[in-house]
Amino acid sequence: MEPLDSLASIYPASRFNRDAAFQAAFESDGLTAFRAKPRAVVIPESAEEVIETVRWCHEHAVPFVARGSGTSLSGGSLPVADGIVIALNRLNRILKIDPVERIAVVEPGVVNQHVSDAAAPEGLYYAPDPSSQSICTIGGNLAFNSGGAHCLKYGMTSNHVIGCKVVLATGEVVTMGSESLETVGPDFTGLFVGSEGLFGVAIEITLRLLPKPEQFHTVLVGYDSLQAAGDAVSAVIDSGLLPGALEIMDALSIEAAEAAVACGYPPGAAAVLIVELEGPREKIEEERRQLDEILTSTQPFAQRVAVDEADRLFIWKGRKSAFSAVGRLSPDFLVQDGVVPRSRLGEALVRIQQLSAEADIRVANVFHAGDGNLHPLVMFDGSQPGALHRAEELAAKLSRLCIEMGGSITGEHGVGMEKRDFLPEMFDEPTMRMMHRIRAAMDPKLIANPGKMFPGKEAPALSNIGLHPLEKAGVISRE
Amino acid sequence: MEPLDSLASIYPASRFNRDAAFQAAFESDGLTAFRAKPRAVVIPESAEEVIETVRWCHEHAVPFVARGSGTSLSGGSLPVADGIVIALNRLNRILKIDPVERIAVVEPGVVNQHVSDAAAPEGLYYAPDPSSQSICTIGGNLAFNSGGAHCLKYGMTSNHVIGCKVVLATGEVVTMGSESLETVGPDFTGLFVGSEGLFGVAIEITLRLLPKPEQFHTVLVGYDSLQAAGDAVSAVIDSGLLPGALEIMDALSIEAAEAAVACGYPPGAAAVLIVELEGPREKIEEERRQLDEILTSTQPFAQRVAVDEADRLFIWKGRKSAFSAVGRLSPDFLVQDGVVPRSRLGEALVRIQQLSAEADIRVANVFHAGDGNLHPLVMFDGSQPGALHRAEELAAKLSRLCIEMGGSITGEHGVGMEKRDFLPEMFDEPTMRMMHRIRAAMDPKLIANPGKMFPGKEAPALSNIGLHPLEKAGVISRE
Repeated sequence: MEPLDSLASIYPASRFNRDAAFQAAFESDGLTAFRAKPRAVVIPESAEEVIETVRWCHEHAVPFVARGSGTSLSGGSLPVADGIVIALNRLNRILKIDPVERIAVVEPGVVNQHVSDAAAPEGLYYAPDPSSQSICTIGGNLAFNSGGAHCLKYGMTSNHVIGCKVVLATGEVVTMGSESLETVGPDFTGLFVGSEGLFGVAIEITLRLLPKPEQFHTVLVGYDSLQAAGDAVSAVIDSGLLPGALEIMDALSIEAAEAAVACGYPPGAAAVLIVELEGPREKIEEERRQLDEILTSTQPFAQRVAVDEADRLFIWKGRKSAFSAVGRLSPDFLVQDGVVPRSRLGEALVRIQQLSAEADIRVANVFHAGDGNLHPLVMFDGSQPGALHRAEELAAKLSRLCIEMGGSITGEHGVGMEKRDFLPEMFDEPTMRMMHRIRAAMDPKLIANPGKMFPGKEAPALSNIGLHPLEKAGVISRE
Repeated sequence: MEPLDSLASIYPASRFNRDAAFQAAFESDGLTAFRAKPRAVVIPESAEEVIETVRWCHEHAVPFVARGSGTSLSGGSLPVADGIVIALNRLNRILKIDPVERIAVVEPGVVNQHVSDAAAPEGLYYAPDPSSQSICTIGGNLAFNSGGAHCLKYGMTSNHVIGCKVVLATGEVVTMGSESLETVGPDFTGLFVGSEGLFGVAIEITLRLLPKPEQFHTVLVGYDSLQAAGDAVSAVIDSGLLPGALEIMDALSIEAAEAAVACGYPPGAAAVLIVELEGPREKIEEERRQLDEILTSTQPFAQRVAVDEADRLFIWKGRKSAFSAVGRLSPDFLVQDGVVPRSRLGEALVRIQQLSAEADIRVANVFHAGDGNLHPLVMFDGSQPGALHRAEELAAKLSRLCIEMGGSITGEHGVGMEKRDFLPEMFDEPTMRMMHRIRAAMDPKLIANPGKMFPGKEAPALSNIGLHPLEKAGVISRE
């Protein structure tokens, strides 16, 4: 046994916790099908405490998982059984907002939305907007290269992080990137963003801020079929317009959102499309005329333009609540986030419907249509024997469908626990070997969030039949 | 001795060359102060030949340098003495232009300008535009994350490469990124771009294409002082306009360009500023009114708007020829490309003038003003004893000036041979260790372009006094 007391000595008793009841809150994340019991939860209040904790883990070869609010939908912040959880929520200081250089420097536990709030007086904001932005943290966004409804126009988290200070899993504190957009040599920041906690912990993050759009033009459009909504997306993209967001929800997800937040979406719609233009006033006035023409030609049965900012947020409320709202239709669900080439979106939706019917499992669809980023929500009742297993089988088919169609198993939620078995189906053996070597260069003892992203030696592959090897070993368990 | 014959057997005699006269063309690159004699030059015509060559080098632990047109200004494609040069110019096929997905797939030896030429019928182009774009290759652009006059608006090469197939220095062929903008996990493509040839050789590269701007508005403005031109840049940026390019040339570089290409810049100008707006016609009409007002308020003594595309290219001709034109003023020169925070540009220019006067060495200044990316050209006569050494000393001071001011030693030319001693002044020890470990994960035998980017063990530090250790060892020599 390593001397856990020496770790405890870093913290006051109130921020070092071995109590099972307290720890229960940290045993799982947004992928609720899995849970694991950590050895201890530590709650650092400074970067120095994080560094000391990682050094302790490295010295004693104890695995650790750093986490923010635990909103990961791929099980990315699931603890390692008998490992340390580093809860970063108190590292929530915004260290600097520089309106001239248009950057913010923040700690990892800062909530996404709080960056935009802090930048608002300067007329600036932080663009990436995951649905969970009112609760998820920048550190988690970084680890999983989070997207959001507006990533069609603005890109993912990786496009907005220009530098970070990181404590590697070795305990070394390194600097990646800088406050300048022009960097020297390889893009180590880009390497770190999306590394799912396997390289170390970001302790200071420099974000790019953008001027707040002068004007929005947000339209909610109702269609009789999912296909018609998909065609409308193609029509908008082909016209050369670049909306900030282009989102589709299908009938099931509309039903869920309506029940949850009464968002007033057109009754009876088989699909709704949300299109949001944003930019300088004059440009938007011009573009909205063009958009009106396009949308009219797609023969929607209902169409509504947000009349003011409150109305705009009301339209978005339905979309942003869709995931949690689906909880009203089904006690449990898995959220996939595969990507297909945009031009094959219609085909993908038809295939998903077929697979859903064959499996006799309901699937709600919500998607960042402009990116080809699907979010099928696979519903199940975890209290029924075998239901999770069947849901996972369908989810696996949906992941493979995306790979087959030339897409990706994840657009923004990350590989995490959930999709790691599919990584070797996307990347060939030499590429996987390269990834493992880079991982080992950052974390030679494989203690940083082990069991996520990679299958294979590092963590045995998830089996679709019977118990997962990590379950057999008692490292994780299913509810 | 490794069996060089087995390498020769991969190639027909005409594409495997040990002849000293032939090899002379490959002994140096754009940093002409250094040259080295390779053991052999190979000229592959297929990706398979490149792969076999790298595998041979790995097996026999023979260093290699892959190169395109050898336009590197930092000595990035300088051969390793007694190593293999892999000349990639015949891997110059454009494999695909996809106007729907807006991508091009190319081989590494494709000339930058040829991508835009091939995409032109689709109304698309490849944005990064180094001054050498009519000759430099995409593979080299990738290795050094090249910029260009328009990187203010569009970013560097790394913003335009979405995937690549690479033969690592181990001989493994790996795939990084994809045709989709949404990737899984860490950004390995971003890691490869800017790695200066130290990880391996890209054999297939997927580039993002952009719609050609509908309209340009290009203005050439003459000022009585460099300071006034710098202030004009600040005024333009502060206004919220985002020009495609914002370039300044000082009196010495104007003189050189005028002598070389008779570009008709305003006689007697202490500085010229080139501002180029680009975008949809209506937007540009609006923006040019705003720009006119701003420029008038900066009290230039001359101002000229390009009347048509030919005139626009004529204005750019002076700027794009500036580096080679300086050769008319001085038999030799070193091109620096340090970066300072944009807000400290004026201060940096004053310091450069002081350092130039103290050293009694002429320095011409050409810069991507919008990015704070300086290009001081340090002039010297290599035939004079000690002249190169003194020029290098001044160049070193300019690099350190950029670091001190919170900037970077390179904006777009890369570290290469020239600036590797300064890397440890920009990055601390743990960060340097991390970089070395990543390098070793890609190239455990350190055979891919060794001696570039990193000082230290891998290649002893360049000494500013007396002979460079690699010179002592006969690995490189100065002209």
